[in-house]
Amino acid sequence: MAKYGFGVDIGGTTCKIGLFSTDGELVEKWEIPTDTADGGDRILSDIAASIKEKLSEKGIASDEVTGIGFGVPGAVNDDGSVNRCVNLGWGVRPIETELSGLMGGMKVRAANDANIAALGEAWLGGGQNADSAVMITLGTGIGGGIVLNGRILNGFNGAGGEIGHIVVNPAETRHCNCGNCGCVEQYASATGIAYLASKELLDSDKPSSLRDIDSPTAKDVFDAAKAGDELANDVVDTVCGYLGQLVAVICNVINPEVVIIGGGVSRAGQIIIDRLQPSFSKQVFHAAAETKLRLAQLGNDAGIYGGVKLILD
Amino acid sequence: MAKYGFGVDIGGTTCKIGLFSTDGELVEKWEIPTDTADGGDRILSDIAASIKEKLSEKGIASDEVTGIGFGVPGAVNDDGSVNRCVNLGWGVRPIETELSGLMGGMKVRAANDANIAALGEAWLGGGQNADSAVMITLGTGIGGGIVLNGRILNGFNGAGGEIGHIVVNPAETRHCNCGNCGCVEQYASATGIAYLASKELLDSDKPSSLRDIDSPTAKDVFDAAKAGDELANDVVDTVCGYLGQLVAVICNVINPEVVIIGGGVSRAGQIIIDRLQPSFSKQVFHAAAETKLRLAQLGNDAGIYGGVKLILD
Repeated sequence: MAKYGFGVDIGGTTCKIGLFSTDGELVEKWEIPTDTADGGDRILSDIAASIKEKLSEKGIASDEVTGIGFGVPGAVNDDGSVNRCVNLGWGVRPIETELSGLMGGMKVRAANDANIAALGEAWLGGGQNADSAVMITLGTGIGGGIVLNGRILNGFNGAGGEIGHIVVNPAETRHCNCGNCGCVEQYASATGIAYLASKELLDSDKPSSLRDIDSPTAKDVFDAAKAGDELANDVVDTVCGYLGQLVAVICNVINPEVVIIGGGVSRAGQIIIDRLQPSFSKQVFHAAAETKLRLAQLGNDAGIYGGVKLILD
Repeated sequence: MAKYGFGVDIGGTTCKIGLFSTDGELVEKWEIPTDTADGGDRILSDIAASIKEKLSEKGIASDEVTGIGFGVPGAVNDDGSVNRCVNLGWGVRPIETELSGLMGGMKVRAANDANIAALGEAWLGGGQNADSAVMITLGTGIGGGIVLNGRILNGFNGAGGEIGHIVVNPAETRHCNCGNCGCVEQYASATGIAYLASKELLDSDKPSSLRDIDSPTAKDVFDAAKAGDELANDVVDTVCGYLGQLVAVICNVINPEVVIIGGGVSRAGQIIIDRLQPSFSKQVFHAAAETKLRLAQLGNDAGIYGGVKLILD
């Protein structure tokens, strides 16, 4: 009987690999470099070699492994292929079949990296075994992933959970990277928060500790807000106002069990949940008002947890 | 082998019943009155009697029937019970078990009526066998239903698809029936459209054929707009602007294959799809921009189609 599974999260710089027991316990995790040279041709074989080495080191036989689930920075088609993963140098590639072949026919499942992070967090992170969860990842941009009935929602064009581009300010005239105007990413991503802070510092004449910092970051803004800085708190209110609006819209569409906030910006902590609550409460439909709002808990390991969950189902 | 199935749509006044072949062909449909007296105690037995009578009339044996799927005006729990259906006089009631018992143990499935309408339209109406679809029902209020992987999305609190209460105008101060302000229902339901028209007639001094009508309805507004009335067209642009915003938000969350517009207001026809397109295009994420937008096709029969689909799956 299979006792182990692997979760892999392929990023542009490193591949994170986790050996798990089939009941979800992380036995060991490690990283190998992602070799993007030659169209990323060696990425999957490097992973296969590293996994085989670990199996040999641990004395685990192949038939004790249920399979490998992995995430890639791009959309994965239903047939287990990718069309294009720019950061890895990949064009069209049947990645599930390829890795399975390298592993002697082992069961292999692939999915988008934001989606496996959501799956991992729904399972053993902020979701605590939630059957349905939405993860909002606040990083340089805003990504997302949706888990319904324990499974990733890919969407018809692979765009399920692309919640960073929900328009929260139809009156906006400044353009988002996506070409539209008023996306939540323009306000509540790390980049958006830094922009709003720089604008507020220009527009307002309030004193602020942020004035002593050359180009304040999202972290600077939250740190100053926690220290009582009024201008920084104005920015946090704007940011969290839009975030609350985003969470309310999501809850009004799919009514998940839990919404999980992750990504670099979420390291600011509970302040984000606390400060988005008023605008969330104002706009959420009453039947969905009790939706749990949680911070992500697995950090950079969310992807390997979600990866192994892909093949444990 | 089972050759038939029944779809039932229980409303506050009548129960619609459809006899279908298992390949989805409607063999015959009819209605019986909904007897809401005595806590609605006779509703299910009246339906069972009517179905038994039809079986006998057609010479169909019980084992030729795969089951009965039905919709009720209220939320249905996972265990097939309802907590409360105000319009039927029902309190807590194990409706699946009850109807199954009345039918000699026949397979029975129940779901919310807006959701089975969505299932029916996704299957054989505007969706044409779509695997994922969202139905927006523009009636007195705005209801909705979401179908993903061919199944109804109920949501954690039964509030999945409650899209009428998505806030599209955060600046609104007028309250919606739900208690919040700025819900799309306040603008794009039949009630909302009539309100917007009456407001525009007061605020504007444009001439309009609507001024000759005492309390113009949503239908009056669309009729006048089609006839070239400028003021009516202003109202239609406002209404469809909000509708396009709603459809864009839904697509940015779940990226369905098709969005279907139904309900009484949708009888205005293609003008609704055409006029919501600009605001939809402006706010939808590019990857979901090709989502098909369709008018509902099954009218009042959507519920019986969706009902039978519940038990054919």
